[in-house]
Amino acid sequence: MSTDRRRAILEGAARVIARRGVRGLRMEELATEAGVSTALIYYHFKDRAGVLRHTLEFISDRADRYTSDDEDGGAHDARRELERSLLLEFQDLPEVRENSTAWGELRASAVFEPELRGDLARATLTWIHDVADLLGRIRPTAPAPALTASAERLTALLEGLSTRWLSGALPLAHARELAKEAVTVELERLRD
Amino acid sequence: MSTDRRRAILEGAARVIARRGVRGLRMEELATEAGVSTALIYYHFKDRAGVLRHTLEFISDRADRYTSDDEDGGAHDARRELERSLLLEFQDLPEVRENSTAWGELRASAVFEPELRGDLARATLTWIHDVADLLGRIRPTAPAPALTASAERLTALLEGLSTRWLSGALPLAHARELAKEAVTVELERLRD
Repeated sequence: MSTDRRRAILEGAARVIARRGVRGLRMEELATEAGVSTALIYYHFKDRAGVLRHTLEFISDRADRYTSDDEDGGAHDARRELERSLLLEFQDLPEVRENSTAWGELRASAVFEPELRGDLARATLTWIHDVADLLGRIRPTAPAPALTASAERLTALLEGLSTRWLSGALPLAHARELAKEAVTVELERLRD
Repeated sequence: MSTDRRRAILEGAARVIARRGVRGLRMEELATEAGVSTALIYYHFKDRAGVLRHTLEFISDRADRYTSDDEDGGAHDARRELERSLLLEFQDLPEVRENSTAWGELRASAVFEPELRGDLARATLTWIHDVADLLGRIRPTAPAPALTASAERLTALLEGLSTRWLSGALPLAHARELAKEAVTVELERLRD
C-alpha cells in the first residue's frame, strides 16, 4: 500500500539521519534503506528538502506518541505529565535515541540549510506551546508571557542537554536529573 | 613565520566550519582559505582530526578573550561579569557568530565523529567550571554540587538558545532576554 511505503521511507530517513547526519542523507541510500526505488521517493516527497520536511513532521509526531499518554490530565497530574514528557526525551531506547539524534541534526543543519528553517521553527513553536500549556495548568495565575518564557527555556535546555548526551559529554542519568531540577526551578519562578 | 601560518590555518578552519559545517571541511579548501599548502596543514596538525581539535581550542580561547575583561572582579562585580560573559555569546558580530556557529557544529558533529568527543568534553568542563566559579562568588554559601548543576544548566541552555538563534528560530534580542532571566532564576535557586 502507498501509505505503508510512504511510512517506510520516513522511518528509513529518520534512521539514516540518526546514523550519518542530515548531510549524509543520499536518496540512493535512503531508497536501499527503505526498500523502494528512488523514483518512489521523488514521487511522494518531490525532492530532498521535501523528504527532510516530512521527516521532521514524522519524528515530531513519533515523539508526541511516546511522550504523551491518555490520562485524563487534571491539574494535579500536570506536573507529573510535564516531567514525564520532558524526561522521556532522555531514554536509552533505540527509537528515542534515533528521534533525538535526528531532531538535533535537523536543528544543527538548519544553520546551513535555510530551507529547513520554516518547518523547524513551526515545530518548535508547537512544542513550546504544549509545554507552556502544561506549566499553565500547574500555575494557573502565572501570566502568559512568563509561561512562554519558561517553556522556551525548558525546551532549549532540553535540546542543549540532549546534544551533550548524544555526543558523550553528559551521562544519561545526570541529564535527566538536570532536566528535572530545571522544571522545579522554573515552577518556583512562576510561583512569584 | 611559522606561528603566523599556524594561526592563519586555524582562523581559516573556523571560517570554513562556520560557513559550511564541520562535514564541509576539506583540506584543499582550507589550504586555499588560509593561503598555504595542504602539506603545511598536515605538517602542523597531522590529520583532519588534528585540525578539528586545534580549531576547537582556538575558538574556545577566542571566546575567552571576548567574554572576559581585566577588571579586578570583586564579589559585587561577579554578577555583572557572569551576565556579560554569558550574553556576549549573543552578538551579531562576525567573529561571535562565527565562533558560535563553529562551536555548535563541533558539538553536533561529535554525535557522529567520536574522535572529537574527548576534547569537546574537556572544553565543556572548563566552561562549566568557570561559570560555577562566578556563581560561587555571587552565592558564597551555596554548596559546590548546586553551583555545578546551575552552571551545567546555564551553559547547556546557552548552547540550545544559540543553535535556535543561528538557525533563525529565535531573534537575537529574545535569546539575550531568556539567557539573562535564566541567570536570575538560577541565582534565586542558589539563594535557598
